[in-house]
Amino acid sequence: MPTARFNPLVKTLAAPPIPEVQAWKHDYDGRLGPLIDLSQAVPGYPPHPDMLRWLGESASSPSMAGYGEIEGEPELRAAYANWVSDIYAAEVKPANIHVTSGCNQAFMATMMAIAGPGDTVLLTNPCYFNHETTLAMSGVKVGYVDSHAQDGFLPTPEAVEAMINDGVRALAVVTPNNPTGATYPAGLLRELFELCRARGLWLIIDETYRDFLPLDSGSPHGLFAVPGWQDNLIGLYSFSKSFCIPGHRVGAVTAGEAVVTQIAKVMDNLQICPPRPPQAALAKAIPALGDWRRANVLEITARTEALSEVMADAPGWEIAALGAYFAFVRHPFASLSAHDAAHKLAREAGVITIPGSFFGNGLERYLRVAFANADVTTIRQLSARFASTG
Amino acid sequence: MPTARFNPLVKTLAAPPIPEVQAWKHDYDGRLGPLIDLSQAVPGYPPHPDMLRWLGESASSPSMAGYGEIEGEPELRAAYANWVSDIYAAEVKPANIHVTSGCNQAFMATMMAIAGPGDTVLLTNPCYFNHETTLAMSGVKVGYVDSHAQDGFLPTPEAVEAMINDGVRALAVVTPNNPTGATYPAGLLRELFELCRARGLWLIIDETYRDFLPLDSGSPHGLFAVPGWQDNLIGLYSFSKSFCIPGHRVGAVTAGEAVVTQIAKVMDNLQICPPRPPQAALAKAIPALGDWRRANVLEITARTEALSEVMADAPGWEIAALGAYFAFVRHPFASLSAHDAAHKLAREAGVITIPGSFFGNGLERYLRVAFANADVTTIRQLSARFASTG
Repeated sequence: MPTARFNPLVKTLAAPPIPEVQAWKHDYDGRLGPLIDLSQAVPGYPPHPDMLRWLGESASSPSMAGYGEIEGEPELRAAYANWVSDIYAAEVKPANIHVTSGCNQAFMATMMAIAGPGDTVLLTNPCYFNHETTLAMSGVKVGYVDSHAQDGFLPTPEAVEAMINDGVRALAVVTPNNPTGATYPAGLLRELFELCRARGLWLIIDETYRDFLPLDSGSPHGLFAVPGWQDNLIGLYSFSKSFCIPGHRVGAVTAGEAVVTQIAKVMDNLQICPPRPPQAALAKAIPALGDWRRANVLEITARTEALSEVMADAPGWEIAALGAYFAFVRHPFASLSAHDAAHKLAREAGVITIPGSFFGNGLERYLRVAFANADVTTIRQLSARFASTG
Repeated sequence: MPTARFNPLVKTLAAPPIPEVQAWKHDYDGRLGPLIDLSQAVPGYPPHPDMLRWLGESASSPSMAGYGEIEGEPELRAAYANWVSDIYAAEVKPANIHVTSGCNQAFMATMMAIAGPGDTVLLTNPCYFNHETTLAMSGVKVGYVDSHAQDGFLPTPEAVEAMINDGVRALAVVTPNNPTGATYPAGLLRELFELCRARGLWLIIDETYRDFLPLDSGSPHGLFAVPGWQDNLIGLYSFSKSFCIPGHRVGAVTAGEAVVTQIAKVMDNLQICPPRPPQAALAKAIPALGDWRRANVLEITARTEALSEVMADAPGWEIAALGAYFAFVRHPFASLSAHDAAHKLAREAGVITIPGSFFGNGLERYLRVAFANADVTTIRQLSARFASTG
C-alpha cells in the first residue's frame, strides 16, 4: 500500500535547534551550582507590573474576545508608528505597520510576500537559523554572504554584490546581529540599502534587539527617512525582548503600504489576525514604560561590561563580536566541534550556549552566548565555570 | 531603476474577502433597524465569565510571559487529547496534539508539512476560501472535487477518486462544512478515509464547527479509532467558536506523532510557540465548561430551527444545505450575481452575508449565512428584511 508522504522541503529540515540544546540541561549534575542558561534569548527579568496588569485586563475583556483587524489593532499600529518615527527621526504612519505574532512570523509573512519557490534571498553567514529554515521550507533558495571574524562579522557591500543574480529578490540582515551581536553601522546599512535599490531588491532589516543598544548610540540608521524607502526597505521587530513577553507572541513589520497590503493577504491565511489582548496592552506600554526600558538598557550595558571582563581573563576564550543581546565567542577546545564544545560546557560547567555551527559554515570554533539573559553576578560566575572545563 | 518585486503567488491573490464584505455595512442606512451581520462566523454571545477570569489570570502571570513549548502547553495538549478521545471513542494521546494559533494556522502548518510547491491537494467546490488561498500562495496546486446542491453539497468518493493523480498528496474536507453547513455522515468519511489510505493520501478533516452539532448526534466519525489512523488522517480544530475567543487565536491539530514532528518544524519557523496565556485558560475550560457548551448547542439548535422556519416562508428563498453554524441559501435574485445579490441585501435590508461565488465556481445563486451569530429574535426579523428586497 502506498504511504502518505511529507513535504520533502520540511522533512529534510533538522529538528528545531533550541529544544536539542535545552535537553543538555539534564546532562549537568549541578556540581558547580545552578545551571546558567545562555541559549535562547530570554529576558532575565520579569515584565513591568503595569504591563502584567494591562495584559490581564485586556485578556479578560469581552471586547478583546472577537476577531480583530488582520493588520493589527489600530491603537498598537499608531503607538508603534509613533515610536518608530521617534527612533529613526522619520515619519512612519500607522498604515506602514503590520502587527504579527512575533518576529519569526514577521519574517515568514514578509518572505512569502516577496519571494516564491525558486527565487533566491540573500542571508549572511552566520545567520539566524530560523531565517534559513523558513526560506528552505518555502522552496526559496538561500544565497550566503560570508561575514568574517576579522571584519567583526559585518558583511561588505562588495560581498553582497558578488552574490546578486537575476533570481535574487532580497537581502535580509539582522542588526544588532543574532547570533554574533555585531551592530551594523548606519553607514554600512545605507550602502546596503543603496545597493539593493540600484538592483531592485528588498533590504529586510530585522531589528529585534535594537532596544538594547547603549542609550547614547543614537538612531540605528536613517533609512526610514530616505524618500521612497517604502519601495525597497522592510523593517522587522519583536516586542518579546523589550517588553519581556515572548509567551504572548507579538512582533511587527514596518513597510510601505503596498507591502502591508501583500503581507495582509498572507496573514489572513496564516492567522486571520494576531492575538488581540497583548496588542492592547502594548499600545499602552509603548508610551508609558520608556523609563523602565531605559533602565533595562543600563542593566544590559552592565552585563555587557561584566562579560567583557570575564572573557578577558578566561584563558583560551575570546570575544569575536559583542553587542546588544549576544556575544559570539571563540572557545578554547580546538579539537572539538562547536556542537561538542557546547555540549561539554553544558555537561561539565552547567552553562548552556548554542554551537556556532547551528548558524552557518566554518563556525566550529564559536559559541553564541545570550549573555543578556543573566545578571551581572551570574555572568561573573562564568570565570569559574570556564576554568572547570580546562 | 529596477523595482523590487512581490511574490506573484501572493500578488495575484485577491484581497481578503471578509473586509470587503464588512465594508458594505456603511452602505446601509438603518431604515429597517440595526444591521444583522451574518458574514464572519462569530459567536453572538460572550465567553463564559470563568473563561474571562482564567484568561486574565494567565495573561497577567509572569510564569506565562516566557517562551513555551513549540507543540503547545502540556496541560492543553493533555486536556484536548482527553476531550478528543471522549468525542471519538478513541485513544488520542497528548503527543498526538499540536496546538496552533487558530485553525487557519493549523491548516497552513499542516499543508506545509505534507505538500510542497508543485504538489496537488484536493479541496471540494465550494470550499473555504482561506484553504484555497493558503495553497495558492505556497505554490501548491488545488484540485477541485465538485459537490452539488442535489447531493446536499457532499462530495462522492467517485468524484474524489476521479481527481486523484500522481501529484495529489491529500484531500481536505470541512465538516460540518464551511460554507454550506453540510455535515458529512460518518460512513462517507470512512469511505473517503479508506480511499485516501488505499491511494497513499492524507485525509485532512477540519472540524472547527463540530461542537455545534445537535447533542444527540453522537460521535462525528470513528476514524480516530481505526488502527493505524496516524498514517493517513489529520484532524484540525479551532477553540475560537466553541469558547468564543477568536481574538485569542488558539487551534489544534490531531495527528500521528510523525506528523506532529514535521508540523513542529514548520511552527518553529512560523511562530516559535502559540500564545501561551489562552492555552492555560483553555486547559481549565475544556473539562470545566461542558455544561455551558451544551447549553450553547441547544441555543444554536433553536437558531437552526428559527432559520428553517423563516426560510420556508420567504418567497423565492430556499435552504440548500444547513448544519452547525452555516446555511447555504439560494437567493431569489435570478438576474444578479451572488456578489450583487449579497451587496443588495446588505444595502437594502441591512443583512450581511457572503456571496457563494467567494467559495467557488457555479455558485452565483447562493449566499453563505452564518446564522449562528444571531439570536432567535434577530433571525425572525429576516422575514421582514427579505420581504423588503422583493
